[in-house]
Amino acid sequence: MIQIAITAGGTSENIDGIRKITNISTGSLGWHCLEALFAHFEKVGSTDFLIHYIHTENAVIKPLTAIQIRQVNFISITDAESVYQAVDRITKEVAIDFFIHSMAISDFTFSYAVNIFRLSEEIEALQKEGGFCDDEVRFLLENPQTRFSKNEKISSKDDIIIGLKQTKKVIPLIKQNNPNTFLVGFKLLRDVEEEELLRVANELAEKNGCNMVLANQLSNIGEADHKGMLLKNGVIIERPFGKKEIAERIVERMLEKM
Amino acid sequence: MIQIAITAGGTSENIDGIRKITNISTGSLGWHCLEALFAHFEKVGSTDFLIHYIHTENAVIKPLTAIQIRQVNFISITDAESVYQAVDRITKEVAIDFFIHSMAISDFTFSYAVNIFRLSEEIEALQKEGGFCDDEVRFLLENPQTRFSKNEKISSKDDIIIGLKQTKKVIPLIKQNNPNTFLVGFKLLRDVEEEELLRVANELAEKNGCNMVLANQLSNIGEADHKGMLLKNGVIIERPFGKKEIAERIVERMLEKM
Repeated sequence: MIQIAITAGGTSENIDGIRKITNISTGSLGWHCLEALFAHFEKVGSTDFLIHYIHTENAVIKPLTAIQIRQVNFISITDAESVYQAVDRITKEVAIDFFIHSMAISDFTFSYAVNIFRLSEEIEALQKEGGFCDDEVRFLLENPQTRFSKNEKISSKDDIIIGLKQTKKVIPLIKQNNPNTFLVGFKLLRDVEEEELLRVANELAEKNGCNMVLANQLSNIGEADHKGMLLKNGVIIERPFGKKEIAERIVERMLEKM
Repeated sequence: MIQIAITAGGTSENIDGIRKITNISTGSLGWHCLEALFAHFEKVGSTDFLIHYIHTENAVIKPLTAIQIRQVNFISITDAESVYQAVDRITKEVAIDFFIHSMAISDFTFSYAVNIFRLSEEIEALQKEGGFCDDEVRFLLENPQTRFSKNEKISSKDDIIIGLKQTKKVIPLIKQNNPNTFLVGFKLLRDVEEEELLRVANELAEKNGCNMVLANQLSNIGEADHKGMLLKNGVIIERPFGKKEIAERIVERMLEKM
């Protein structure tokens, strides 16, 4: 049986139970990939596949037939940490043949919020102890004592400062756990030249062992006018237009060697 | 003609074109209020009303009949500033009779993001000029020179600090522009005693001239098990259960004096 994984949607990092940091991604491209896979396997007359669909709660999910539903293992996640756990688990439990990693995962998660006046006083107090170095400020900025406590609703009486810390990278897990997986990565940048986009996308591919990368720009990602470049071995092999075509080209090129 | 305004959904504050700060609100309660209004006017056999429905892009909007659609003026907004402008305009142009202000509007908007190392160095450098007071640190924390520039995608190589500044309060506009509007406010708190929730909700009412306030707690706001308290003149007049009943009680109590 062919084992395929897709990640789709944008993660959401909780701030205080009411506010959160999210991403503009809707998961639409991931869903188009799932549909393109169904179309492909229907065309070749095979049902010998399973799609592990790792998605955020708000990611696009459209109706499927009763037969199709049995071929999808839906895995719902919320924040960057939960994707990390889900991908680590599935790639250890299952020998994934193809992995389409289209989810937009937050690079940062919430660490703390602090009132700007209280933080200023805390920093000012540092100098009373005979001056300080930048490491001491950084240590304070990583964990201010005057931060709002974990279950406190953040007061809106003054401006605030929020500390964000890096999340664990998910994409390296895929090849680490299964060197034979065919991995499709995604790179979205904004306001850069094509050359720069290609450079960054190829860097992503090299670093994480992506077999293909879909590179695109923020200004060109509407549902109908989404312009993408599909890269393989550092070379543009397709310039699909529109999310549906992008998904079809990814699936076609990914499966052509089967 | 009876002029009614409803605000619904949670605003979204842009960070860098890809990331944003959002609110858990779905706009479901606002939509239930709209449905309760349609049910009321159908029951009394009147079509002499117009609902100005100010909603966020992701707020719940369900199908309406062709007749109903003509009785709704949909106004789509995104962030706190755009709600402020929309509410200011509509309350100046139209003598609103009833205003149900259920939208969750961000108290803060994005000001800047800065690399934690660069900010630490910038603060450390302050002391070279012979010590500093907390106002100087606060000034720096309001506008660090090493911040990411406006159209720069925030690098994820290090932890970052984000500065958030307060948004303009929308609710005071409603009575300022139309002292005769019947205003229904909403107060959501988390993990507090009922007494404290009542105190804060009544404070909101007094400060902004709310004729009624729906007070609720984060732990009790699921679609079916949403527990609310409807307050009028500082007293609990209803304890509705579930979003549909909450909306019905609000509409019924709001219109009873007509």
